[in-house]
Amino acid sequence: MDATPSRPSTRTSVLIAAAIAAALLLASAGAGFNRDSARAQAGDDRPDARDVAMAIHCGTGALDEDDPPEEAEQLEAAFNESLEAGYAVLDDGGEALDAVQAAIVVLEDEPLCNAGRGAVFNADAEHQLDASIMDGSDLRVGAVAAIENVKNPISAARLVMEETPHVLLTGEGADDFAAAQGLETVTQDYFGTPERYQSLLDAKEEDEAAAARRLESEGELGTVGAIAVDGDGDLAAATSTGGLTNKMVGRIGDSPIAGAGTWADRRVAVSATGTGEAYIRLAAARDIAALMQYRRLPVTRAAARVIEKVDELASGAVIALDRRGRLASPRTGTLKYGWITGDGDTTIRIFDED
Amino acid sequence: MDATPSRPSTRTSVLIAAAIAAALLLASAGAGFNRDSARAQAGDDRPDARDVAMAIHCGTGALDEDDPPEEAEQLEAAFNESLEAGYAVLDDGGEALDAVQAAIVVLEDEPLCNAGRGAVFNADAEHQLDASIMDGSDLRVGAVAAIENVKNPISAARLVMEETPHVLLTGEGADDFAAAQGLETVTQDYFGTPERYQSLLDAKEEDEAAAARRLESEGELGTVGAIAVDGDGDLAAATSTGGLTNKMVGRIGDSPIAGAGTWADRRVAVSATGTGEAYIRLAAARDIAALMQYRRLPVTRAAARVIEKVDELASGAVIALDRRGRLASPRTGTLKYGWITGDGDTTIRIFDED
Repeated sequence: MDATPSRPSTRTSVLIAAAIAAALLLASAGAGFNRDSARAQAGDDRPDARDVAMAIHCGTGALDEDDPPEEAEQLEAAFNESLEAGYAVLDDGGEALDAVQAAIVVLEDEPLCNAGRGAVFNADAEHQLDASIMDGSDLRVGAVAAIENVKNPISAARLVMEETPHVLLTGEGADDFAAAQGLETVTQDYFGTPERYQSLLDAKEEDEAAAARRLESEGELGTVGAIAVDGDGDLAAATSTGGLTNKMVGRIGDSPIAGAGTWADRRVAVSATGTGEAYIRLAAARDIAALMQYRRLPVTRAAARVIEKVDELASGAVIALDRRGRLASPRTGTLKYGWITGDGDTTIRIFDED
Repeated sequence: MDATPSRPSTRTSVLIAAAIAAALLLASAGAGFNRDSARAQAGDDRPDARDVAMAIHCGTGALDEDDPPEEAEQLEAAFNESLEAGYAVLDDGGEALDAVQAAIVVLEDEPLCNAGRGAVFNADAEHQLDASIMDGSDLRVGAVAAIENVKNPISAARLVMEETPHVLLTGEGADDFAAAQGLETVTQDYFGTPERYQSLLDAKEEDEAAAARRLESEGELGTVGAIAVDGDGDLAAATSTGGLTNKMVGRIGDSPIAGAGTWADRRVAVSATGTGEAYIRLAAARDIAALMQYRRLPVTRAAARVIEKVDELASGAVIALDRRGRLASPRTGTLKYGWITGDGDTTIRIFDED
């Protein structure tokens, strides 16, 4: 693991370099990632469990030497558990959709991430959580927004997709639906941590201008996401978040919105993190897919180009995975992320590796 | 006004024909629509108030001979008032953003449309309203979802854009924000009508399969939208709706989501209507813009292609306007819509004109 928390001299060069670096790393990470050559060697075109791949993130704000070592250990353990949970599904011939859900549940349960347990506080010292999941094979989507009592929002999103004629449920209606479906519910105190509460108090003490600057530079610190390609070549994406510290009551960000913070189709799976408002205004995740579909850009160039647009408005990052297992991870600052290849090799980058 | 309520033999041919027809109608509707030739004749490149254009819709489900004549008169009067309200802004040198808001307020106040007064009932016999507005000149967006007490949701959406760091507010937080900003609030009884309540009772009596069929074929009957290009060549779009009759509590459709039911950038302004879930899954409005930006398709072909995709999932229509004032209005069924040209000529099509 690289652990060199140096700051970039210019943002744009960094994000392009990061995208290329991630692509190169993956290309060399294991034969399982090169679906075509693996298939050519096998002499057939059948789906191959070795072709699977998955990546996860836990938002911007990579760790540095000032962070306690226990925190890095705890986060690394959660990343490993998350990647293994998703990989177990994929390695067993399961669907990308199930893999990303399994990976997200682990990260929602990890209090160091801003999703499920560990979600930030809004302006009324409450937790309102957003999540979505998308199946690239048929463009089905399920999402919940501003929910307050479901332990694992991603599972509620999945049930919206499977069990309702709708795509997005919000507020009490969504909480009531999830409870009626038998999902585990919790009281608000489950989500909070003393560190998150201190962040709220700090935010409340800022003046308006400082708050706006923080919003742009930090975004949704710790939003979690997962993207995967399964043995059938199908892609899926999922994102879950507590949103922004001190956000207005009822604020919905990009995470629960297909095309903004989450997207999967037959070409690419995307999960975003950062200042959600910018991703909605750009329909950023859909824009990456559009650049691949209509301009024939590879995933690394498409994702880097969209993060350049994000950079003009605010800050953030995406992870994006194409059908061949090529991963892009461009960002305006730093990102905590990791991936697992078809042969089960795991790489975790929670420190700033630039 | 054409008033021939014949049914199409095939859906696809109809929507392409409709798109071409609308384009031809507009091309011949007034010299004001041909921005380039008008400017060439003027010998300069200054903005020209004669170049402005605006279009509105009040959802799918055009009227036919079974509808009472008073209803057609009432709806036509509302369309005229809406178009004139928007045109007054544009003709005065105002912004497209203000024009679409003014046009939508009129349609929200009209009980025959499913937005503001006249909004449909959800499964709990409540009204929850969605709206969004987008400024194509800078991609600013404001939106509200599942709000219950604001008389004009589009004005709340505009205030989210102007007065908060956020893009989308939902539920009580959004209602409280709008009230604090001084917007007129109403009790739930303001929105309902006996006809909408009967629709809820009818829906409740349907079995599940029939309800699903109705959802796909009717979509969001009566959602309202407005798109405009102003004298500076800037575009804006706005959409407002009560959603689907008998929708689950907390359901959010495409109307408040930039990229799904509403979009404006420097090339095109879009407002959609129909089964909102399909538009979210396709990021439909953004897809029209992407086809224009990355494939260089004209607005008519881009919009028609996306409605072909909608047709595979459900039903609906869009209106889309490019910077030169070319209008597309492809649809899987029928659409109630109208437009006004730079010289103030108004055309209203609330009957099925195919």
